[in-house]
Amino acid sequence: MRGEGVWLYDADGRRYLDMYNNVPHVGHCHPRVVEAICRQSRLLNTHTRYLHELVLDYAEQLTNALPDGLDVAMFSCTGTEANELALRIARGVTGGRGVIVTDYSYHGNSQAISEITTEYGSPHGLPPYVVAVPAPDVYRGAYRGEDAAERYASHVTEAIGTLQSRGIAPAALVLDTIISSEGVVAVPPGYLTQAARAVRAAGGLFIADEVQPGFGRTGEHFWGFELDGVVPDIVTMGKPMGNGYPLAATVTRSDVAEAFAGQTRYFNTFGGNPVAAAAGLAVLDVIRTERLQQNALQLGRHLAAGLEKLGVRHERLGDVRGAGLFLAVELVEDSVARTPATEYAGRIVEALRDEGVLTNTIGRDENILKLRPPMVLSREDADMFLAILDRVLARVIHE
Amino acid sequence: MRGEGVWLYDADGRRYLDMYNNVPHVGHCHPRVVEAICRQSRLLNTHTRYLHELVLDYAEQLTNALPDGLDVAMFSCTGTEANELALRIARGVTGGRGVIVTDYSYHGNSQAISEITTEYGSPHGLPPYVVAVPAPDVYRGAYRGEDAAERYASHVTEAIGTLQSRGIAPAALVLDTIISSEGVVAVPPGYLTQAARAVRAAGGLFIADEVQPGFGRTGEHFWGFELDGVVPDIVTMGKPMGNGYPLAATVTRSDVAEAFAGQTRYFNTFGGNPVAAAAGLAVLDVIRTERLQQNALQLGRHLAAGLEKLGVRHERLGDVRGAGLFLAVELVEDSVARTPATEYAGRIVEALRDEGVLTNTIGRDENILKLRPPMVLSREDADMFLAILDRVLARVIHE
Repeated sequence: MRGEGVWLYDADGRRYLDMYNNVPHVGHCHPRVVEAICRQSRLLNTHTRYLHELVLDYAEQLTNALPDGLDVAMFSCTGTEANELALRIARGVTGGRGVIVTDYSYHGNSQAISEITTEYGSPHGLPPYVVAVPAPDVYRGAYRGEDAAERYASHVTEAIGTLQSRGIAPAALVLDTIISSEGVVAVPPGYLTQAARAVRAAGGLFIADEVQPGFGRTGEHFWGFELDGVVPDIVTMGKPMGNGYPLAATVTRSDVAEAFAGQTRYFNTFGGNPVAAAAGLAVLDVIRTERLQQNALQLGRHLAAGLEKLGVRHERLGDVRGAGLFLAVELVEDSVARTPATEYAGRIVEALRDEGVLTNTIGRDENILKLRPPMVLSREDADMFLAILDRVLARVIHE
Repeated sequence: MRGEGVWLYDADGRRYLDMYNNVPHVGHCHPRVVEAICRQSRLLNTHTRYLHELVLDYAEQLTNALPDGLDVAMFSCTGTEANELALRIARGVTGGRGVIVTDYSYHGNSQAISEITTEYGSPHGLPPYVVAVPAPDVYRGAYRGEDAAERYASHVTEAIGTLQSRGIAPAALVLDTIISSEGVVAVPPGYLTQAARAVRAAGGLFIADEVQPGFGRTGEHFWGFELDGVVPDIVTMGKPMGNGYPLAATVTRSDVAEAFAGQTRYFNTFGGNPVAAAAGLAVLDVIRTERLQQNALQLGRHLAAGLEKLGVRHERLGDVRGAGLFLAVELVEDSVARTPATEYAGRIVEALRDEGVLTNTIGRDENILKLRPPMVLSREDADMFLAILDRVLARVIHE
């Protein structure tokens, strides 16, 4: 099995267009990233007890890509670790324990993070210090009008009240800046700003989980939170950073980092080791030199327009949404009632795979195709995908 | 800066004998591990949603190196993640929440794991569901006689009683099988067996943290717990596994894994990706073909004997202990009162660095030199280290 660009090849040499995976952010096995990993692996790969110039370079380049003020980067290996550290920092510096998350979120797999991962549920329900708010979904959610942002944000204020009524001070609001697990929901403009304002007024921090939208994927901006012009207190990032090399980061303001450092010690053996830093630097460089953010913008628009067109012909294609190369196609039994076409969506995924295209379903009803290809997707690849999807939608519906 | 075998080279080309780092387990930048990482990085590096034969091969080889019954390996990226998963499993399958750890332990940096990391302390003290027992230290601890194992193990029984008196059922006893943070304490024979028996009788599991002693480091055995002939319920491992590539694992019995899988879902993006598996396989192969466990045994004995000899001439060299290439040299002001020579130990570390040898201090009083070189240390390297340490001990004491 091997991968190259947007393509995966199975053991028999059959190729699949990868429309799903954001780990190979700049393409499977991008030669410049591979070369950076190999070169540094041959030279030196230690932990971060000894400072290395590549780590410093990378921290500088990464914080330069973020708004002013977000200038302390702490490296780890996975999005879970990045969110763990963010939560420890938020709880440490605010003195609060309460966390507000959306109601079908995924933030990682550790114990503390699984408590704020509402997607998987728990036999014990949420602990008293975690309150879930409705994801700001304007297709399927309760609010769809002009005041959707305000009404969804009011749930954050309400959640703060719930925490306070339990005697728990809010530590943080943790949001995917493109609500992902719920079904790639582009948040209504103003929502992030209002929600962040509410939690800050109550003494909490706003943590933007950029594991999915970050690094130019949304096309218009390098980070998801920029869609709304808000500056988070802490930004966490992971998967795409090292194009497959385990690398993650928690970035915050120096005043927040210093307050936390005054309370405890934190050390991460592999986090930001020289090889990870070399991979991260190569990824940033490839995004710039191959203009991949612009590609995500243009190809995202092209794909979305093509999908909209398919929606005219295929009535079960209920909604197309997202930003850049982070799109969702909602499949419904009925476009007025919007009944989720769960079983149908599963068959579409299988039929696409049979035709050589990889994707998968997400959302509470598993009826949403998540499209999140490597950022090097070309116009030809996109057109091929649209043609195959068209064929599959026509065929599967008549079976 | 670069590394090769047991050597690190600074920017000016000056070389340092690395007597401290266990991340480059089979030597800095071992060419076979580097080659495995490069080869697989060029071919394919995805997450573990798609099964890959290297991951299966590695899981098989790894569980083959463990006692019968421990046959389910779950991969992650860091020792913290491995311990996180172990704790979630233990709490999930026992229904208990209580954890027993030693009183100066380090198990990782996440929120749940920092609660059982007693080394760093906490402004809030231990949570009610964590009870610390004295590390079974027969040099500096309360019990030094023949009954030390039994008396130290009785503290585990006592800790279970403390948890139960708080209405908390014990989930796990978590132990470094060579007590590391406390100062590389080789546990007295029988301790692990008796401690494990006590926690199991109370419905808890025994989790062996092999992040430090595992993969042949102790010389006599491949795993630290084998020193005592006990089979843990869960084994966690990390640092040395990938020789620097972020790779960790939680291994348990299939009945335990199945009980946990019935309760929740667990997914780790990077854990056990094909590159990590390739690195892990190469490390196992190098340990075997270069007979590194045997080397650890022989060189460990040689080093320990040399250090004992130095102890005769240098009165501040209070104790030499450990197993294989995991040794501790305790520096004291007075060999009878055993007063920790903290400031002196710091000066020794600096003087060694000036002479081209890297090590560091550990222990509650930071008076213990931790010797944990890459497993490819040669007899010449060991003799050079002994000669330099001899010189440094003679010089620094007279300053």
